[in-house]
This record gives sequence, C-alpha cells and structure tokens, in this order.
Amino acid sequence: MAAWRYPQADTTSSLKFDFYKRIAQSAERGKFDMLFLGDSLYTETENLYKHHTTARLEPLTILASLLAVTDYIGLGATVSTSFNEPYNVARKLATLDHLSNGRAAWNVVTSSNDKEAQNYNRQKHYQHDFRYERAAEFLDVVKRLWNSWEEDALIMDKESGVYADLDKLHPINHTGVHFTVKGPLNIPRSMQGHPVVMQAGLSHRARQFAVREAEVLFTIASSIEKSKQDYAEIKGQLSLFGRAPKDLKIMPGLLAIVGKTQKEAEDKERELQQLVIPEFAVRLLSNQLNVDLSGYPLDGPLPALSDVAHFNGEKGRYEHFLALAQKENLTIRQLSLRLTRGHGHLTMTGTPSVIAEQMAEWFASEACDGFNVMFPYLPGALDDFVHEVIPILQERGIYRTEYTGTTLRSHLND
Amino acid sequence: MAAWRYPQADTTSSLKFDFYKRIAQSAERGKFDMLFLGDSLYTETENLYKHHTTARLEPLTILASLLAVTDYIGLGATVSTSFNEPYNVARKLATLDHLSNGRAAWNVVTSSNDKEAQNYNRQKHYQHDFRYERAAEFLDVVKRLWNSWEEDALIMDKESGVYADLDKLHPINHTGVHFTVKGPLNIPRSMQGHPVVMQAGLSHRARQFAVREAEVLFTIASSIEKSKQDYAEIKGQLSLFGRAPKDLKIMPGLLAIVGKTQKEAEDKERELQQLVIPEFAVRLLSNQLNVDLSGYPLDGPLPALSDVAHFNGEKGRYEHFLALAQKENLTIRQLSLRLTRGHGHLTMTGTPSVIAEQMAEWFASEACDGFNVMFPYLPGALDDFVHEVIPILQERGIYRTEYTGTTLRSHLND
Repeated sequence: MAAWRYPQADTTSSLKFDFYKRIAQSAERGKFDMLFLGDSLYTETENLYKHHTTARLEPLTILASLLAVTDYIGLGATVSTSFNEPYNVARKLATLDHLSNGRAAWNVVTSSNDKEAQNYNRQKHYQHDFRYERAAEFLDVVKRLWNSWEEDALIMDKESGVYADLDKLHPINHTGVHFTVKGPLNIPRSMQGHPVVMQAGLSHRARQFAVREAEVLFTIASSIEKSKQDYAEIKGQLSLFGRAPKDLKIMPGLLAIVGKTQKEAEDKERELQQLVIPEFAVRLLSNQLNVDLSGYPLDGPLPALSDVAHFNGEKGRYEHFLALAQKENLTIRQLSLRLTRGHGHLTMTGTPSVIAEQMAEWFASEACDGFNVMFPYLPGALDDFVHEVIPILQERGIYRTEYTGTTLRSHLND
Repeated sequence: MAAWRYPQADTTSSLKFDFYKRIAQSAERGKFDMLFLGDSLYTETENLYKHHTTARLEPLTILASLLAVTDYIGLGATVSTSFNEPYNVARKLATLDHLSNGRAAWNVVTSSNDKEAQNYNRQKHYQHDFRYERAAEFLDVVKRLWNSWEEDALIMDKESGVYADLDKLHPINHTGVHFTVKGPLNIPRSMQGHPVVMQAGLSHRARQFAVREAEVLFTIASSIEKSKQDYAEIKGQLSLFGRAPKDLKIMPGLLAIVGKTQKEAEDKERELQQLVIPEFAVRLLSNQLNVDLSGYPLDGPLPALSDVAHFNGEKGRYEHFLALAQKENLTIRQLSLRLTRGHGHLTMTGTPSVIAEQMAEWFASEACDGFNVMFPYLPGALDDFVHEVIPILQERGIYRTEYTGTTLRSHLND
C-alpha cells in the first residue's frame, strides 16, 4: 500500500494514459486473460491519509482508452450497483464490449462504505442485505437489457432501407422493487454476446450471488487447504443452478514478489513493508474492522471484536482478518502489515521458479482456476513477472503461449 | 437521417472502433477544435422505426477510446443531468480530461423524452423548469467537485511519504434540493483545470443557463440576420454575470454538403433526401412537435399547434420548426425533410469555395464564433471537407494551420 514510494515505482505518471498503456501492453505480451481495475467512490481527507494514494481515476474510462492500444486482453472493472442506474451501466459496458470486439468484463460490487454513500445523497450506506437485493435486481435488469436485441436484429440493408428488424428488439418492461426499466437497450448484442460478469464479495450472500450469476469469482485465500475446500464447495453448488463447474472460474488474489534470488525477493518485501507508516497501517486496519485500534498497543493482540453478523461492511474480509490474526497469533502491527501487503491476499515471495511452482501446485490441486495477480509496484514488477514467471508456466504447459480466441470469454474457457 | 443508406456511407462499421478512429484522426488532420458526439437514452421499437439507426453507443466510452489515437483534438459529448449522479459524471469527465491531457468537454443536457424517463424509473419525464433546476444544481455540484483539489495538492514525495497535501482537498458539503454530496472528488485537477462546459438547449431557460455557465453554446440557426441578432444579444448578456464576450463561443450547427460543382452538391443533397421514407419523416416531425401529423395531407400545411409555453419537450426546436414552416410557407412534407436534413440545422450545399465563402461571411459578420459542422455521411463527407473546404479557410487566414496549444480550452481561445 505504500508501494508508490518504492524507488522503481512510476508514481508521478499514474494519472497519465501512457502509464496504463504500458501496463496493458505488458500484460498482453504476458497473455493474461484480463486487465482488471478496482474502484472506490470517495477519498479520505483526514491528515493521516496524506500517505495514501488518494487519487483514483474512473476505471471504465481507463479501459476504454486501452481498447485502442490492445487487441486481445480482456478489460474488466468494478462498477457499483448501489450508486448507478442499470440502463447506464448496461450501455457503458455494452459499448466497451463492442469497441473492444468482445473483451469487456464487469465486477459487480455493492460498495460498503458510508463515505461513498455520502457522495450519493445518503448519510449511511444501505444495509448488507438490502445492498444485495438491489444488486440482484440491478444485474437482472442489466442482463435482460444486454439480451434485449436478438443476435440477427441488425439488418442494415441499404436497398430496402431497413436498418433493424424491430420485431427482434424486446422491451424488458421491468417493474421491480428498486428499478422500473422499459428497455430495450439502444445497443445491439456484441461479439461475445454480452460482457463477462464477475463477483468479488466474500460473504455468504455474495457467494450465493456468484454461484448463481457470475462467470469469474475473485476470492481472498488464507491457505491452500482452505481454498481447496472452498473450491470444491463452490463448484459443487453450481449444479443447483443448472451450471457446470467450468462456468464459474475461481481466482484468488495473489501478490507476487519476484526476486533473482530468494533473498532478493525477501529483501524487496521487507523494503516495501518498511515504507508503510505504522500509524497509517493501523488506521487502515481500524477501518477494515470498523473499530478504533489506535488506543491499543501496536505489539499487542487485537481486542475482542463483534460477531460478523453484526458487521455492516465487507463481511468476508472482516472474517478473513479475524481468522488470520487468531490462526497465526498476530499482533496489531503484524496484522496491519498483512493488510497493507496486498490487502491481506495470498502472497508469494521468491524466485521465478519458486513462484511458478507454487502457482502450479494451487492450480493442479484444484485450489483455483487461475489467479488475480497483483504487483507490488508498477510497471516494473509486472514486467518482471511477464518475462520471468510466465515462461516457466508456459514450459510446464499450464499457461497459453498464444491467445487462441479474440474475446475475453474465449480466453476464460481456453 | 437516412444517410446510412447512402452508397458511400460506411454503415456496417458504425459499431466498430476503427470507424470512430478514422473519423477522429481525419478531424484532427483538419485541425478541428473538437469531435462532438450527441446521445440519447432509449430506442424506438415501433415498426416504422426500422428505417432509423436505432443503435447508439455510449459517447463517453467512444471518446475515451479515441484519446489513445489522437493528440490534440478536443473530445466532447452529451451527458444528461436528469438520469445520472453528479459524482459519477464529475469523475468520468475528469478522468477523460486527465488521460487526454486536457481535451474533455461536456454538453450539459436535461433530456426531454418520456421514453428516456421510462428507462430510469419514471413514467413521464420531469417538467421543463424542474429539469433545469436539477441541471443547475447538478452542474454546480460537478464544478465544485472539479475544483475540490487545489492545483498543488498532489505532492508525491517518496522520501517523506506524503502523497497529497490533504489541507488542499476541500469537501464541498453540498446539501441541496436534488443532491447531497460531501466530496471532495477522488481525482486531482487536470491539465486544463476542468473539462469545458457546453450547452445546446434553445429555450429561454436554456439560454440563461448558457450565459451564466457555459463556454460553448451550440445553436440552431434559421438565417444569418436572426443569428447576428441572437449573437449580439447573448454576447451582451454575458457581462451581467461578470463574463467577457469571448468567454462563451457561439456555434450554430451546420450541415455541409460539398460537391465538385454546384450541381454535384445539389444532386447529392437530392439523392440523400430521396433515401428518406416519407411516412417515417412525418413521424419524426410528429415526435419533434409532439402531435400526430399522420392524418394530415403530406402536401398540405401544418395544423394549428399549441403555444410553446404549453410544450414540454425541446422548446427551442419546437419554436424553430414552427417559425420555419410559417416563414417559408412549408408543407408537412417539406418541413419533415428539413428535419431529416441535419435535424433542421443550417445547411450549405455547394462547391468548397462557395461553402468556405458562406462560412467566412457568417464569421466576419458576427453571426457566430465557429460552427458545429455535421456531415451528411461518414467518413467520406468529413474527409472531403477536410481536404477541400478547410484549406480555403486557412488561405483566408480565418482558420488555424497548426494547433498552437494542447488543451481544448486553448483551442477555443486560439
């Protein structure tokens, strides 16, 4: 989280197109399925946050700029169902999907922060269940809008003057609890039918949502054993909704810290952690757990915290950090450094071959279908991963050497 | 409006990135200030509309893709204040402005169609005054969000670990009739400060709004005399708000139909009009005037229509078409063909030198500051204009031969 301070990090250009272009083209050279961008809808103004990268460009706009300088890589972003209208989201993603020839993906999130709600006419955010009810209806409307043009509705016959066969456009006439949307969309079906739907929530409710609706699930992994259990369980649930195991790809977040030697990688990790201001890390942890930890000894244990059922925030992450602290008997300082190291995600620190071997093991033992790889600093750490780790995965025959299709959905099923 | 049927029109690729790329690069070769895209938030499904180009990609997404393949040209689009949230619009436009190095512009519209409202949880659209009240508050919030970071707020000092001086970020704490928005934005100021604000409404209310808030005003011109009057009047009103005449650029729409000879140009215009299906043209006119004209003789006059004060739609266009019909004693068929020919805008049909001369006359006689040039078909008619008309304007010394700045605001004031 303090990686913008790392000497090789290209900090000043993170508001520039060329920065994103370089990252996208590097990831495409690495034959990644997708470039994924998260989002948040507010910024902190309290003085302690001066250490934080408080600027965040709007991700769909970044992705649209990148479709012009890439040909294959998928382009996915987080868009909140709590602070948007379904007709707008359906259009933006359908447009991205058309212009990119079928490479768009949407990570459906409900947002969880009161500070975001305060930029959207509310003092407090909706409660957890309400958010997911709204999200389910939102996604239903968006999918129906995407499907509101039959595949062969566009005619464009200059001779007869028929542009579209309007019998093949279908109003959705949706009247629900949260939305009333007549439709159809004013955009035809795209090359991949419609954008790929993804989910990143970790709560029970979010998981149910993913099993029913998503094609990609981003998870936060605490161990290979637990991930294998979760994987089997989630894949098993798909059949309840008439879906096959391959229909939902499970991808834990993975922070990859690559070094030429094990020592170099570990030094890099330590250096990165030393850039974190301790009081700031504790504040971030306090926010994550929705409790003020600033009065507790940095090198002491977490105080007793309330049950997840009474927590209105990112429930899955709340459980993850509490379990982590308990299992590894972590102090507040240690836990806060886990948070600032890749937001508590699985971390692999080592040589290219060590990391490739671990990734292969996770994959072979059905702990995941792939990874949402994160890099400690950009663009250098991505370049290193592409040049050093990916060739080993390719040699092992578990990673593509060329794209075989042009749409994101084809990459995911490749 | 039937130009998609024109033999040289590149119809099938209008959902493809390469189509827009070609247009944007051609306009940039022509040293245009800006590429501007309109929008609408619904599609028709009634059978008669099968002749219409019912597909419309979301314009901000298109513009974002184009920033990657252009360096100078401004990128402007219509975004509705009736069906969006100010925090989202502020972010998207600020992101476009950053990634394009200061080339973004927003045409602020309130939308006017019940069919759009029906895609956004309403049966009927808001009334005219309510729409403009909401728009005024919306724009105020967006501008304050754009101004919520002081120019030197970003520090990014790796040594001290200070990313931003948060004392230079200012919550806007807006609590209004339509919106409650705390702020600040999570995006710093851009290279041109903030995106250019434009206005296209023609009603009295819209005009007031433009005089107070906009930097560019798109108008619909009926004659050079009337435009000179309007120009003088609008420029005169600017001082009431502490603004100089140069602070608002007035640009009437102009459909340019260029031919090698006058006859070729006129033939082209006739050919284009013959592609319009008459019943469809009458329907479009019926919609514009919010009255069913299908029962009246095609070659007879308009029936008596209600006063503009009682019309809840695009009031300015309503007045324009009624005045046009009266002044030129047009039949329903003739008026409908004016509508389908560049939506009733000023049309110049002729050789490059005739068109250049007319444009120069409008400019020299202070009927306008420039034009929002429309092309009967794309990309060919744009290419012709760039290769044949612009060089004459350049020779006359009234049009740039090179961009002198890099931001849109610098082009407008060049």
